[in-house]
Amino acid sequence: MTICTVSVEELTELAQSALMSAGVAATDAADIADVLIAADLFGIHTHGVQRIPQYLERVALGGVNARPTISTLAPAPALRLVDGDNGIGPLVGRRALREALAASRAAGVGVAFVKGSNHFGPVMPYLFEAAQQGFAALIASNATTTIAPWGGKATKIGNNPLGWGMPAGADDPILFDVALSVVARAKIRAAAAAGVKIPTTWATDAAGIPTDDPDDALAGFLLPIAGHKGYGLSVMVDLFAGVLSGASYLDRISSWSSHPEVAQDLGHFFILIDTAVLCSEDELRQRTTDFRARLLATPAADPSSPVRLPGQSEMQNRHRQLRDGVDIELADVGKLRELSERPSTVGGVQ
Amino acid sequence: MTICTVSVEELTELAQSALMSAGVAATDAADIADVLIAADLFGIHTHGVQRIPQYLERVALGGVNARPTISTLAPAPALRLVDGDNGIGPLVGRRALREALAASRAAGVGVAFVKGSNHFGPVMPYLFEAAQQGFAALIASNATTTIAPWGGKATKIGNNPLGWGMPAGADDPILFDVALSVVARAKIRAAAAAGVKIPTTWATDAAGIPTDDPDDALAGFLLPIAGHKGYGLSVMVDLFAGVLSGASYLDRISSWSSHPEVAQDLGHFFILIDTAVLCSEDELRQRTTDFRARLLATPAADPSSPVRLPGQSEMQNRHRQLRDGVDIELADVGKLRELSERPSTVGGVQ
Repeated sequence: MTICTVSVEELTELAQSALMSAGVAATDAADIADVLIAADLFGIHTHGVQRIPQYLERVALGGVNARPTISTLAPAPALRLVDGDNGIGPLVGRRALREALAASRAAGVGVAFVKGSNHFGPVMPYLFEAAQQGFAALIASNATTTIAPWGGKATKIGNNPLGWGMPAGADDPILFDVALSVVARAKIRAAAAAGVKIPTTWATDAAGIPTDDPDDALAGFLLPIAGHKGYGLSVMVDLFAGVLSGASYLDRISSWSSHPEVAQDLGHFFILIDTAVLCSEDELRQRTTDFRARLLATPAADPSSPVRLPGQSEMQNRHRQLRDGVDIELADVGKLRELSERPSTVGGVQ
Repeated sequence: MTICTVSVEELTELAQSALMSAGVAATDAADIADVLIAADLFGIHTHGVQRIPQYLERVALGGVNARPTISTLAPAPALRLVDGDNGIGPLVGRRALREALAASRAAGVGVAFVKGSNHFGPVMPYLFEAAQQGFAALIASNATTTIAPWGGKATKIGNNPLGWGMPAGADDPILFDVALSVVARAKIRAAAAAGVKIPTTWATDAAGIPTDDPDDALAGFLLPIAGHKGYGLSVMVDLFAGVLSGASYLDRISSWSSHPEVAQDLGHFFILIDTAVLCSEDELRQRTTDFRARLLATPAADPSSPVRLPGQSEMQNRHRQLRDGVDIELADVGKLRELSERPSTVGGVQ
């Protein structure tokens, strides 16, 4: 694995060109690239621009709509219902974020429920964009099912990501993005490839019994964090993101990997709170500064491993990579270049 | 321990009388009793009427205000800022719930941030009341600090409860209420009393090292669920419930047990979504019925232990106890009777 360093500008151009070659409109490509590159800047490369080839494969198979007509209803001053028309996830997510921001500016709180969407990347880029504008946020999505209900032996719930964001005036916001399985399947695949055992807290085999064998685990189910507590959280996220939004939910969601040609109809929700209505930016900064200092002043159990804030390492990654360029796998850059150099399809360049 | 069965009517009268004897106004006593008895009905007796003596002890010491003037600001159509004036927690909680419901009826979404409050009981009674009126809810509170930050060795965060509620038309709502430590301190105290070891996932000793000794654990810190993930969730709940509300947070919150005479200034938040604006009651019922059926149809790893829904056992407790009466420890009934029979203090009976 060779890592190269690419400037944000170059990576943006590359990502946009790749997307446009598949028929994505220029402004839409810009929105998608922004979200994915924000993920890379946070160091969340598994959800960064390396996803573009996968997204475009689904476009080519007819599973995702490169040219969606995203529509929004406003059934109440603080509520928006967004239909993503099966567009590329980060595009739908970013539009929904904007709708929720507009509602929140008008009503103090804005909530967008989204249906007809796809994998929208990690939550952190949305949390960050909201925080930069002074909005506290609670954002989540449902997902392809990988987890069995607590005590069950069939995948029924997704590794639904849940994110919380808190602005801090001119300081770095405090962002937290949690997936509700103990580990991602990728980590089990890596253990299988390396031929090493896994902790029994990670997954069960196909019979629903916790296992330390990565191959058995890959044939089985991911375990939720904290047992029935993580199960409960995952269910509630799906009720909000899937049921309330009018999207698919639980095992109604088809798998993007097994059936890339089928629309997933994922659901998300964005809850935004305009902190400017609650207190002045100065006051918020003072309170978050005190909050941060109190946590960081906690003596460490192991002095070589100090107490950290949620999202602290991601913010450090962002500062470093904005300064030095983004670390990207050479192979991923190659794939993007290849995609961006193919003859564009219908209306790809605008 | 002797358990007796008391009708809801009798328990309500007893709880109200006990509260009024300490100077709580009749309508306020009714609100508080409703919340605590709802907790008992769900089977959450640790947060039911047995808390009343503790609440009133703090009133007697001047740590809690029996006659608060609860005030509300509406800085934006969907936002409410509630100042509990150091009132008894379930009273402040219930008022805040009403404010958030009113805002949600007007704007589709209503959010109340609360400061100047105290222990507001479990979250489930509020979730239930909201769901009965068709509102999905996300409700949380901060709390006396019992948890060390991940990797730290000083209590800085509380076992902050976080609850999610989802109405289901005429069917039982789906409610989920999670505390963010692996177990409550009471469970460790019970192990210490019984002289048995505890799992090392429950708590650390005073040096921040996981321990299986309950006495060492009681001198140390509760561990959050799922390690750094539960730590992150707890921090974000405190940022919303404590920092955004203008209340105290982290170790600014004084302990109700060590310093019962000091106002805690706890914070809560109530996020309510009017589901009637999103879809018809029939549609919501159909979708939640399908959701419920899909989960419950999951084959069980152990056939004697079927898959359950979050909050299912609490709803069953409620139905049973509404029919058969509420199970209460005889000693707790005795304490309430004793309190209710003492001469009332200033303005206690109205």
